[in-house]
Amino acid sequence: MSQAIDFYFDFSSPYGYFASTQIEQLAARYDRTVKWHPLLLGVIFKTTGGAPLPSLPLKGDYALRDFERSARFHGIPYTRPELFPLPTQLAARAMLWVAQTRGDAKAVEFAKAVFHAYFVEGAKIIDPDVIGPLADGIGIDAAAMIDGANSAEIKERLRNDIEAAVARGVFGSPFVIADGEPFWGFDRFDQLEAFLKSGKI
Amino acid sequence: MSQAIDFYFDFSSPYGYFASTQIEQLAARYDRTVKWHPLLLGVIFKTTGGAPLPSLPLKGDYALRDFERSARFHGIPYTRPELFPLPTQLAARAMLWVAQTRGDAKAVEFAKAVFHAYFVEGAKIIDPDVIGPLADGIGIDAAAMIDGANSAEIKERLRNDIEAAVARGVFGSPFVIADGEPFWGFDRFDQLEAFLKSGKI
Repeated sequence: MSQAIDFYFDFSSPYGYFASTQIEQLAARYDRTVKWHPLLLGVIFKTTGGAPLPSLPLKGDYALRDFERSARFHGIPYTRPELFPLPTQLAARAMLWVAQTRGDAKAVEFAKAVFHAYFVEGAKIIDPDVIGPLADGIGIDAAAMIDGANSAEIKERLRNDIEAAVARGVFGSPFVIADGEPFWGFDRFDQLEAFLKSGKI
Repeated sequence: MSQAIDFYFDFSSPYGYFASTQIEQLAARYDRTVKWHPLLLGVIFKTTGGAPLPSLPLKGDYALRDFERSARFHGIPYTRPELFPLPTQLAARAMLWVAQTRGDAKAVEFAKAVFHAYFVEGAKIIDPDVIGPLADGIGIDAAAMIDGANSAEIKERLRNDIEAAVARGVFGSPFVIADGEPFWGFDRFDQLEAFLKSGKI
């Protein structure tokens, strides 16, 4: 079995969401598995000097348009959430808790439910009363998950994961690293696929 | 004849260079012409708060790698110039002078020569002694062009063009506007093509 490819994302990133709908099938075509890593772009931007796209003059308006057009172009369901962007600590920590206690496959199922709730249904995923039912929906006790997500251990785990990601050069969402080769952006999935196919570009 | 599509670029932008090698053929496939607009990203970044990619932590290193990989992926000749990025006032003004005195087709020929000199041969295109011979190579008197490029009229023309571009929402390179629809980045040429083909996405 080849080494897993690493998929980094922020739950508030539309391009990260687009990537989340395709990364598993893409990897499977080349007999690869995917390790999902939730990040907080706000923390990373403190290191890199980045800023949320919608906050930037001109680029912000363009980005909102590009999210919708890219979704149509790739045939991905997308509705601009009313509250955007938003803090994703709770979602990221909850996912780490699910991974730790129920395994990676369940954590991916949870992550897909979070992305869908936010970018298709417009749910306010900062709210425990929104995140909780997503756990219930995949057979996980909501109260236990929220408690776990708020534990000191999981908080530290997320901090460490983000630090490790930045140390590997991760600065945006989505960001994929395959066999040491970095790919930033859903619009590099064509190059990622070429790389997985032939081992080089 | 349909309306021309507008192609904005900075001569110091690798993605702008990549786009310059394909925009004419892409447009021609849909019976469209291209109007080329040289810009100065440095001036635009004063409005938008942007910054040259290579200056950004993490993103800068990634960008240098992405330039080379994207060139290989798309089969475009590219060698990272020793001096990068560099000021492109002279090249942009010279192109405007060629357009004004010899017409758009000659200006596009000149622009392609500048991009090739910089991104394939690594020539220092800030230097009149480098830019001049590029004019000679396409039958334009080098001294006349350099004089024209330094005239108050052409300097004002470039300032006005940049102001007009920003007023249309242009903030990066390459940037294409087709029938009012904006496309930022060489990696949106797939969407640009879909749009030219069907008039919508």
